[in-house]
Amino acid sequence: MLRTHTCGELRIEHVSQEVTLCGWVARIRDKGGMMWIDLRDRYGITQLILEEGITSPELLKKARALNRECVIQARGMVAERLSKNDKIATGDIEIKVNEITLLNAAKLPPFLIEDETDGGDDLRMKYRYLDLRRDIVRKNLELRHQMAIEIRNYLNSLNFIEVETPVLIKSTPEGARDFVVPSRMNPGQFYALPQSPQTFKQLLMVSGFDRYFQIVKCFRDEDLRADRQPEFTQIDCEMSFVTQDDILQTFEGLIRHLFKKIKNIELPPFQRMTYEDAMTYYGTDKPDIRFEMKFTNLTNIAKGKGFQIFDQAEVILGICAKGCANYTRKQLDELTEWVKRPQIGAKGMVYVRCEADGTFKSSVDKFYSQDDLKTWVEAMHAAPGDLLLILSGKDSDTRKQLSELRLEMGSRLGLRNKNHYSAHWVVDFPLLEWNEEEKRWFAMHHPFTSPKPEDIELLSTAPGKVRANAYDMVINGVEVGGGSIRIHNKELQALMFKTLGFSDEEARAQFSFIMDAFEYGAPPHGGLAFGFDRLCALFGGSDSIRDFIAFPKNNAGRDVMIDSPSFISEAQLKELNIKIDLQ
Amino acid sequence: MLRTHTCGELRIEHVSQEVTLCGWVARIRDKGGMMWIDLRDRYGITQLILEEGITSPELLKKARALNRECVIQARGMVAERLSKNDKIATGDIEIKVNEITLLNAAKLPPFLIEDETDGGDDLRMKYRYLDLRRDIVRKNLELRHQMAIEIRNYLNSLNFIEVETPVLIKSTPEGARDFVVPSRMNPGQFYALPQSPQTFKQLLMVSGFDRYFQIVKCFRDEDLRADRQPEFTQIDCEMSFVTQDDILQTFEGLIRHLFKKIKNIELPPFQRMTYEDAMTYYGTDKPDIRFEMKFTNLTNIAKGKGFQIFDQAEVILGICAKGCANYTRKQLDELTEWVKRPQIGAKGMVYVRCEADGTFKSSVDKFYSQDDLKTWVEAMHAAPGDLLLILSGKDSDTRKQLSELRLEMGSRLGLRNKNHYSAHWVVDFPLLEWNEEEKRWFAMHHPFTSPKPEDIELLSTAPGKVRANAYDMVINGVEVGGGSIRIHNKELQALMFKTLGFSDEEARAQFSFIMDAFEYGAPPHGGLAFGFDRLCALFGGSDSIRDFIAFPKNNAGRDVMIDSPSFISEAQLKELNIKIDLQ
Repeated sequence: MLRTHTCGELRIEHVSQEVTLCGWVARIRDKGGMMWIDLRDRYGITQLILEEGITSPELLKKARALNRECVIQARGMVAERLSKNDKIATGDIEIKVNEITLLNAAKLPPFLIEDETDGGDDLRMKYRYLDLRRDIVRKNLELRHQMAIEIRNYLNSLNFIEVETPVLIKSTPEGARDFVVPSRMNPGQFYALPQSPQTFKQLLMVSGFDRYFQIVKCFRDEDLRADRQPEFTQIDCEMSFVTQDDILQTFEGLIRHLFKKIKNIELPPFQRMTYEDAMTYYGTDKPDIRFEMKFTNLTNIAKGKGFQIFDQAEVILGICAKGCANYTRKQLDELTEWVKRPQIGAKGMVYVRCEADGTFKSSVDKFYSQDDLKTWVEAMHAAPGDLLLILSGKDSDTRKQLSELRLEMGSRLGLRNKNHYSAHWVVDFPLLEWNEEEKRWFAMHHPFTSPKPEDIELLSTAPGKVRANAYDMVINGVEVGGGSIRIHNKELQALMFKTLGFSDEEARAQFSFIMDAFEYGAPPHGGLAFGFDRLCALFGGSDSIRDFIAFPKNNAGRDVMIDSPSFISEAQLKELNIKIDLQ
Repeated sequence: MLRTHTCGELRIEHVSQEVTLCGWVARIRDKGGMMWIDLRDRYGITQLILEEGITSPELLKKARALNRECVIQARGMVAERLSKNDKIATGDIEIKVNEITLLNAAKLPPFLIEDETDGGDDLRMKYRYLDLRRDIVRKNLELRHQMAIEIRNYLNSLNFIEVETPVLIKSTPEGARDFVVPSRMNPGQFYALPQSPQTFKQLLMVSGFDRYFQIVKCFRDEDLRADRQPEFTQIDCEMSFVTQDDILQTFEGLIRHLFKKIKNIELPPFQRMTYEDAMTYYGTDKPDIRFEMKFTNLTNIAKGKGFQIFDQAEVILGICAKGCANYTRKQLDELTEWVKRPQIGAKGMVYVRCEADGTFKSSVDKFYSQDDLKTWVEAMHAAPGDLLLILSGKDSDTRKQLSELRLEMGSRLGLRNKNHYSAHWVVDFPLLEWNEEEKRWFAMHHPFTSPKPEDIELLSTAPGKVRANAYDMVINGVEVGGGSIRIHNKELQALMFKTLGFSDEEARAQFSFIMDAFEYGAPPHGGLAFGFDRLCALFGGSDSIRDFIAFPKNNAGRDVMIDSPSFISEAQLKELNIKIDLQ
């Protein structure tokens, strides 16, 4: 090794030892007579000291020629510091340097390698290898590594086997858009990159593997919204001979294990909420339940008083913001503007202030008497000092809008502390959703999801009412994972494909291998997948998965560091039997 | 859970317990009055017993309707067996069944789900999910899982961080052929799948990550020879601030750890052999040193006696097969035919039998006296009873041929026991190799490999003589991994690109990001990668990596189970801005 110690490990007990360190010059302070160099590596920072009269003139000259981010090897004696620094682990000591070797010079980096950097997003992505030098970015990847270890330990202890499934698979039209790979050896044909190892893990269950997992890259060629990546990592899991409850218990256990090991937080057992309740009380299938502020349906009591907007609304829903009656007119106007932004899309907002004296002040006093408003206040269990915020309109739109407003109010009221975690399950998702464009039913989860046995007969009469044995895990309003009990019966699978509008031929062309597999003894099975990037971001207290991916792509799917994708040669295209065809 | 126990865990101490098992019907023996069912799952086999007079007629009827490979749930009482079976772990007990639930029916599988199956390769690949039910196949994947755990444990304990590098990267013309992925969002442009994360791991070193590893899928679009796969898995590793010796020590440690943990074998410290010695004494850069049988160069002593073939040969090389002087003329003829097969390509073979009486009998007695032959025998340290086998011709051809013959003789003499492991390093590989077709030098390892400092000046004068700080790990004649100390200096990297015939523009177009990175403080670093599939096969005592991959592809790169690659729709092609162009 070119070093005897790292820059993070020397302590007071090492004093008087001769050591050799390697690292990057993080900072130089030159006071003429004395000179300090902060030497940085992945493990920490150690202070080097050089002193005129003690240090040789040659060495001083060499040290003065160094600049930030060059790589050096420094040899010297560990000494106790006169003025200690309790902000860093090595703050009790410094190294009296007697030899420095420049291992590699460095140009001045285009931005500061500090937690608070002066580099913008684009610049930091182009020089991602420098961005990764920053403590806070490196720590994200260290967290990711640690989480992967704990995940594997936990699942391994429960007899799960990690099996690598193929990356070069087959394109299927159901689901999101595939990335495809032309096959040179099979001209005109293509592999596809997996959106998930779904069918393979089900085949592994048919094989008897019983408990499978994989931390695995998946791919989706979608138009990238903020914080989506064309390649992302899943913790993919599947179990046989289990009920839905077994799966929820097992993976609730995984997440609680992670919280305990990584953050030393004991999470309580997870609540389970039906999809219907989630939509009713929070207007979303991934409610943030760190705070209450549930929806109250005022439709029946608020109609018929001549207020056109309510009278014509399909639904009237409200939330109660505790202690916000003191919101000024200006604040309320601003909030109204907030819900009217195109991202939210509400037409307007009605408020009721519950004054301290027991009276009510609303934006619709013209239409509603104090007694009318009292019925609202009572329905919403509001108290003097509270503020009611009410939206109305089409059911699904209003729920979405009020859900956003609820989250916004939660944030404004400080009810969404990043260091407070609230995890729960949402269960009983609908099996199907209607696609108005294609005029057919789509699987809400995927075509292998099992309907609840008691709902199977609805498949032919009221497909929209069929509930699935499907579940999502939600933490702090973020869907971190989801899954389902699968269909393991060939007839039911065929019925499902039929409901989705597949002809027998289409179903066979796409899924014959799994339909065949179901004929040779498929066990009852189910599973789920966690978004690993998202889970890391959540544990790291960040909203952005990009911070937890070593080399992410931008919103155009480009890696600006390596400048990819890029053009390839005519010879390559020819070998692959394809041509560029720009419309 | 649908079961209380697995089919592998019940023992004598469970007798009288009421249990529920789930699994596949592996075998049914029906003797009329008594009926036994072997129930199988991943963990083992448990015997179920049903008895007329005790078992209800309904249950007996149900049991008689079962067939092989159907999935059942069986409830019953654990009982001690009358005739125990010491071949299985549950052989002391059986289950007196009182309830059976058919969880899923099964068609008769197309081949026997037994270690000794009647299914051919093609059939087993088409129904891989059934093949994976066989004990010996499943155990291979369990071994792979266990090895991955031990690898991660070991590297994690040494502060290595696993970092996921991207799969959608950039095509580079150097090296093997890339798989490419058309980018819909960047029309006419392509991603490439990584042949290895080489540049990314070097960038991580520049980032200060210091010790990186990743168990990662890599891709090569090569014409598949037997036992190559278009996607394969590497254990990819890199370290900073190290010498070559540190890397060899660290990863020798990894492999010794694996042998200890997985096979309970204590390997001795690994020998190190130079590439030159490997070629001189074994004619290959991956010698199997489980046995000696080194080459002896007879060129100087065997020429000039009028034997045209030797006289015209560039080189005359021999091996000594201990104790084989009793080979019959027929055996020797057969061996001669063996080396003359097109796969080996020798023109002929000369032998010398060292008879028990001290005389020699050779196939070239016409040209060589007993005294002549004695000089050969002495050069080869042969003793009475030994057999000399001698090939001649062009140097490189002859070495390859004799290397094959040596391995063949090793096998015939039982010197290549699969359960005996001999591991060593081959070091000091040449940096470059001449490509006659393209009339230029190619990097033997890759363009980032560092020349030995003392050889750098040869780069301009005698590039073929430059040795690299490159090394391979060889176990039992199999190259399981290899790597190098990298160039970390921009000027040396530029010189290397120049030597490889890249113009500055070409080098920048391909590698500007890594050349730039080298300007911002790159530490000295190096690493290596193991072929994980190959390593698993070696530990599993198999020559075929395919047995250790859950869903492998065939030699045409096809997954015959899912029938991939396949044609994709016109709409997909159009969206991707490409056209099929079959020549």
